[in-house]
Amino acid sequence: MMERFEIVEKALVKMLDEKKYAALRDILMVMNPSDIAELFGQVPEKSIPLLFRLLPKEQAADTFVEMDTDAQELLIRSFSDNELKEIVDELYVDDAADLVEEMPANVVKRILKQATPEMRRSINQILRYPENSAGSWMTTEYVSLRPNMTVEEAILRIRRQGVDKETIYTCYVTRHRVLIGIVTVKELLLAENDETLIEDIMSTNLISVNTHTDQEEVARMFSHYNFLALPVVDGENRMVGIVTFDDAMDVMEEEATEDMELMGGITPSEKSYLKSGAFDLFKNRIPWLMLLMVSATFTGLIITAFEGALAAQVALTAFIPMLMGTGGNSGSQSSVTVIRALSLDELKFSDVGRVLWKELRTALLCGIALAAVCFAKIWLVDRLLFGNTDITLTVDLVVCLALCVTVVAAKVVGCLLPIGAKAIKLDPAVMASPFISTIVDALSLLVYFLFAKMILKV
Amino acid sequence: MMERFEIVEKALVKMLDEKKYAALRDILMVMNPSDIAELFGQVPEKSIPLLFRLLPKEQAADTFVEMDTDAQELLIRSFSDNELKEIVDELYVDDAADLVEEMPANVVKRILKQATPEMRRSINQILRYPENSAGSWMTTEYVSLRPNMTVEEAILRIRRQGVDKETIYTCYVTRHRVLIGIVTVKELLLAENDETLIEDIMSTNLISVNTHTDQEEVARMFSHYNFLALPVVDGENRMVGIVTFDDAMDVMEEEATEDMELMGGITPSEKSYLKSGAFDLFKNRIPWLMLLMVSATFTGLIITAFEGALAAQVALTAFIPMLMGTGGNSGSQSSVTVIRALSLDELKFSDVGRVLWKELRTALLCGIALAAVCFAKIWLVDRLLFGNTDITLTVDLVVCLALCVTVVAAKVVGCLLPIGAKAIKLDPAVMASPFISTIVDALSLLVYFLFAKMILKV
Repeated sequence: MMERFEIVEKALVKMLDEKKYAALRDILMVMNPSDIAELFGQVPEKSIPLLFRLLPKEQAADTFVEMDTDAQELLIRSFSDNELKEIVDELYVDDAADLVEEMPANVVKRILKQATPEMRRSINQILRYPENSAGSWMTTEYVSLRPNMTVEEAILRIRRQGVDKETIYTCYVTRHRVLIGIVTVKELLLAENDETLIEDIMSTNLISVNTHTDQEEVARMFSHYNFLALPVVDGENRMVGIVTFDDAMDVMEEEATEDMELMGGITPSEKSYLKSGAFDLFKNRIPWLMLLMVSATFTGLIITAFEGALAAQVALTAFIPMLMGTGGNSGSQSSVTVIRALSLDELKFSDVGRVLWKELRTALLCGIALAAVCFAKIWLVDRLLFGNTDITLTVDLVVCLALCVTVVAAKVVGCLLPIGAKAIKLDPAVMASPFISTIVDALSLLVYFLFAKMILKV
Repeated sequence: MMERFEIVEKALVKMLDEKKYAALRDILMVMNPSDIAELFGQVPEKSIPLLFRLLPKEQAADTFVEMDTDAQELLIRSFSDNELKEIVDELYVDDAADLVEEMPANVVKRILKQATPEMRRSINQILRYPENSAGSWMTTEYVSLRPNMTVEEAILRIRRQGVDKETIYTCYVTRHRVLIGIVTVKELLLAENDETLIEDIMSTNLISVNTHTDQEEVARMFSHYNFLALPVVDGENRMVGIVTFDDAMDVMEEEATEDMELMGGITPSEKSYLKSGAFDLFKNRIPWLMLLMVSATFTGLIITAFEGALAAQVALTAFIPMLMGTGGNSGSQSSVTVIRALSLDELKFSDVGRVLWKELRTALLCGIALAAVCFAKIWLVDRLLFGNTDITLTVDLVVCLALCVTVVAAKVVGCLLPIGAKAIKLDPAVMASPFISTIVDALSLLVYFLFAKMILKV
């Protein structure tokens, strides 16, 4: 699929160069809006308004929604007031609200001027909700039915109103604006009798979200329940809008990206990688690097404090990277697993005991296996193969004991920090690899040198 | 929502203890199958068959599908042949195929015995496709229409056949089994004339996947196009089934989890964290830990080779953890960003030049900023505050030069390895943090000691 698409893309860019507009229009007309929007990312900026004007009206609006913010701004600036009005009229309210949120003030002014008063009101309502809440990404356009309608009346109402609604497949039954039931088009179509009342077939097992529910939780509910849409209600249980599965998919992707970025020690950003300049990337990455570099002062201090021991047993220094590395890897394994389980809601704070017990046993298994292999490796490879005679059996023992203890400590720190972060309402992903590494690095050095002092008496 | 659910859960477990079955049944009847399945994870195993038998027939099947494999097996073993037949009859083909794939042989035999011959055939067809392909998670139950039907006939057909179909909202128009168009129920309902022919309103801009398309790509297409369902065709373009958005959401979650696990140096597993025993976790984690521990032999060798230099300038040892740590963090920042962009299809192999150029500039900015701060920190904190007189201005200079070069090298390695992996069809995520760390660790030590040799003449 994707490869085929690249071929089409190249052909279109060529037709644009050769000014074959009629043929271009014919092809664009049968293309999917998402693909057209992607195509716009590949053509020279100045061709975008021209290409866009080749699209039929409704397809133009669908494509517009899928484009990235920069291209949208460029287009709006090139639009006449009339052209802008045509696009704004075709937009769903939630998309219009997104647009208003992202455009600079003077562009926003022009957009709102072209919107109908009703749409302006809806946009403003959506913009009042906190960012990343269900209220801020809901749409206010849904099909509402009354409980005393018949199936036939309901279908008639959908046929009349449906054209402007983002989804018609789930309909919401309200009384005095309060949500009392849900009925799907499938249920309406499959109802045996056209005279059946909606209240007799509607489902009253209502699962809804609040306008202030966080988008991450909303996305989780979609993947848990497999719904097409979820109703959004206000504090008084009055229905104010719906959120749809396609937005939930975007949120799921966004949240997973954000978690990965945090795990990698990057400040999350909404810009895609290729759109971010070197300076953007620098800004997102330098804070953690700086913090972790400075916090490595501790490991430096520990080494300085044990300089005597290292001088007395020169072989010890060679194993520092292995110890710290294995400790760091062990810790990040636990933290990644726990962070993901927390994000997917598989773990709660009350599971902390079970997690700790599980990690302790896993850590002991890993620690013992690693120490055993390490012991053999040091003796066979470092001592016998490479002939490093500084390595004695006691040095080997110290390294492997320290390794085992470090792995256990790292896994415990790695699982407890994210759960602790969650408990004090911080994002568990912030506690991942880089931050845990620093703690584990210091711990592993301390353990190592203490064993060296005790056993080697250095 | 989630908190409220926990309260319900506790109440239900209590009612079960007190044997209040009638009340329990009333509550279960209005609960969502996903929630009931979750509840089953919280009650003692021996109560599951009892609770399950309280459910009405159709809800029972929906709940069964949402349960985890262990509980499903337990239930099937407790079912009579009649009970099993009732459940199997209610299952959609794709769910039945999943079940057959996951159950032990003797259970599978019982399931297939209760299935209708037609379902057995469909199950076998689905099971022939490679794991993780569109064919293996499609369902063969969809609404197909003929191009010469009228809108009225089409709606009638949906009303007759729809009850057994997983989704009725997207209908597929076929001629000689070849897919020629798509029409949605929304389009059918909103058509102005009941006599309009399907071929006149169907969309012929067909986006389909092949039975062998990988599930990751299928999921990406869902999030790109926002479809409810995608048609699956065979090598001759004949329609064989559909995949639906809810399965795509599960795949997206699975793939993100898998990427995170690989980034954290864990062999991905489909078992959830709390279901995995300590030995499972050990098996998933030990291979990478072992490999990385053994590969740390290189860093050990490098240090041993430069033992003379370290003995001559004792202050150098103290900065090894900081250098390796900052290098590792810089590298994993780049690799995480690039791996995620590759997974989301934002990057192609042909972008390698742009990526390298972007990372080089970012790396230089980061390297210079870190080196400058590090230089000041070492002088002010380590030398002046802690009075470590082994640190001279030249030592400080060596450390900071090595830091800057290490950061640049780490970022280049971090961005190139995942792209290289993709080019040779390996999973880019395998190239992430732990693997990159090992390379960067060795590089940073080499750079450090070479600078020390050149500048400090040790």
